Amino acid sequence: MPVIYGGLKLINNQKVPEQMYSLSNKLIDNGHEMQVRVYYEDTDFSGVVYHSNYLKYMERSRTEWLRHLQIFHQELAKEDSAFAIHKMALKFGPPAVIDDLLTVRTELKKLGGARSFLRQDVLRVEPDGSETLLCGADVEVAFINHGGGAKRFPDDLRAKLEGN
Amino acid sequence: MPVIYGGLKLINNQKVPEQMYSLSNKLIDNGHEMQVRVYYEDTDFSGVVYHSNYLKYMERSRTEWLRHLQIFHQELAKEDSAFAIHKMALKFGPPAVIDDLLTVRTELKKLGGARSFLRQDVLRVEPDGSETLLCGADVEVAFINHGGGAKRFPDDLRAKLEGN
Amino acid sequence: MPVIYGGLKLINNQKVPEQMYSLSNKLIDNGHEMQVRVYYEDTDFSGVVYHSNYLKYMERSRTEWLRHLQIFHQELAKEDSAFAIHKMALKFGPPAVIDDLLTVRTELKKLGGARSFLRQDVLRVEPDGSETLLCGADVEVAFINHGGGAKRFPDDLRAKLEGN
Amino acid sequence: MPVIYGGLKLINNQKVPEQMYSLSNKLIDNGHEMQVRVYYEDTDFSGVVYHSNYLKYMERSRTEWLRHLQIFHQELAKEDSAFAIHKMALKFGPPAVIDDLLTVRTELKKLGGARSFLRQDVLRVEPDGSETLLCGADVEVAFINHGGGAKRFPDDLRAKLEGN
Repeated sequence: MPVIYGGLKLINNQKVPEQMYSLSNKLIDNGHEMQVRVYYEDTDFSGVVYHSNYLKYMERSRTEWLRHLQIFHQELAKEDSAFAIHKMALKFGPPAVIDDLLTVRTELKKLGGARSFLRQDVLRVEPDGSETLLCGADVEVAFINHGGGAKRFPDDLRAKLEGN
Repeated sequence: MPVIYGGLKLINNQKVPEQMYSLSNKLIDNGHEMQVRVYYEDTDFSGVVYHSNYLKYMERSRTEWLRHLQIFHQELAKEDSAFAIHKMALKFGPPAVIDDLLTVRTELKKLGGARSFLRQDVLRVEPDGSETLLCGADVEVAFINHGGGAKRFPDDLRAKLEGN
Repeated sequence: MPVIYGGLKLINNQKVPEQMYSLSNKLIDNGHEMQVRVYYEDTDFSGVVYHSNYLKYMERSRTEWLRHLQIFHQELAKEDSAFAIHKMALKFGPPAVIDDLLTVRTELKKLGGARSFLRQDVLRVEPDGSETLLCGADVEVAFINHGGGAKRFPDDLRAKLEGN
Repeated sequence: MPVIYGGLKLINNQKVPEQMYSLSNKLIDNGHEMQVRVYYEDTDFSGVVYHSNYLKYMERSRTEWLRHLQIFHQELAKEDSAFAIHKMALKFGPPAVIDDLLTVRTELKKLGGARSFLRQDVLRVEPDGSETLLCGADVEVAFINHGGGAKRFPDDLRAKLEGN
């Protein structure tokens, strides 16, 4: 299997362009997209990424999306608030392997009073430019207080999540 | 929050019975049940078990169930076979905290030609004997070869999974 | 590589004695010893246990040792106290593989005013009864308050750690 | 605790400059330096980064350093070779917390026939520009074959590691 850098098949000893080491991390329409690199820590003895680690990648994208929107876990915690996964419907496709450069895409599908509904996809851009979906998830995130009870989104938080 | 040992509320400095350190791990009708202890490594800064770690607990129970049935990951690998999660529908309830003693229950709901359908629950037995469901999952597991292609269960493996 | 259960080489389809699924977890002279099973989650694509996971095994044994001594992380936290690793000198030997049954041994070597000095070994008991050291560590643990400052052991905690 | 971006204290609702989301990853004299972000997955219930996760950060920097030198884990594996940690002397300082932006610095101190000796530091650049060392390690890495035996560095690999 060829080592893939940002969609380019790497010929041995070929110089890797500088920008390939800089992973993108940006807002997209109604959401966020970032690249993550697969490391040793992510794989298991079957040679591929351990299934639960896709959930870590998804959490990184949710966090970075919130960061772009100026919403920070630590500040939420100070206000006795947190986001907590309530439901997750996962479907796994072909696996990722070490050194893979993956894309994690997060899209806000619906914003309820105390819940947000996201679509999250972890995919690999192949040398021909096509995308292989490795793990996709429909995610329902609850907004809760420290005791775990549901909490309505405050207006300012709602405005940020709606991109206003 | 009181420290819970196998459903007993621990009064400070009370002697913990010996058997409480031995975690159960056994076959049940059509499945498996085991206890797992929550350690530092399982928690996150919000004070509770990090959501993706419930998937690790579930995998441990699937592995121990297979071990009871004399099915071993290493031997499967030598025969170019593996179990791989295909779909997982997760619902999260109240969270587990450090030192909790959890029960992971795995039940085989259906056995297809190359897929198995499981129900897996991670729960906590409370001091009053009731069970709190912390994370439940409907899981579809594919049987695959090393290339990732679907593979029919060999007869001997099927017989073991059916408990024969 | 044969699948090892508690030091017995398993012949295929041989019945596994019941007690082999119950992992030991006990006090020893000046310390603690427990068995841990290697799961998918612990391994990496090179086929063996990922190096940093030995530190998780060691932490489990420290936690279980404290539990035997009636010292609990949650209660320490309520008293604005915690144990924190200050130094760790690790040496790695042959690796563990999936399904291995490992022994984690913790010995208290010295107890200072606000520090404890431990020796921790992760080893595998081989079919011939010999022990293979997979990862050994000299560990210096600090007793700290929430701000991270050193804290003297209270008398009752010291008495417990000294086994009195 | 203020949220820190690359050494800047963030005033609430202040616009975060674009470049702050792009984490640096570059060669330095005799080594490598990269930024890593602390996520939920990295923390534990005590509120800080779990100690063994610093080893993951260090592994990422070693991997990225090798990538810059055109050395890839997958290609090594095909040649029956791998790098494996042999010894690690760790010292922990103040902890990292969620959202922290950390720097991982790797320096090659000595290259033996079949071993490399590295110094690795995980640090945080503070608002005043000073560096706080969170975890430092002297690391001895062995070059091994799949069976775990020591292996001399091939000439081309040695040349790359020496930066030639």
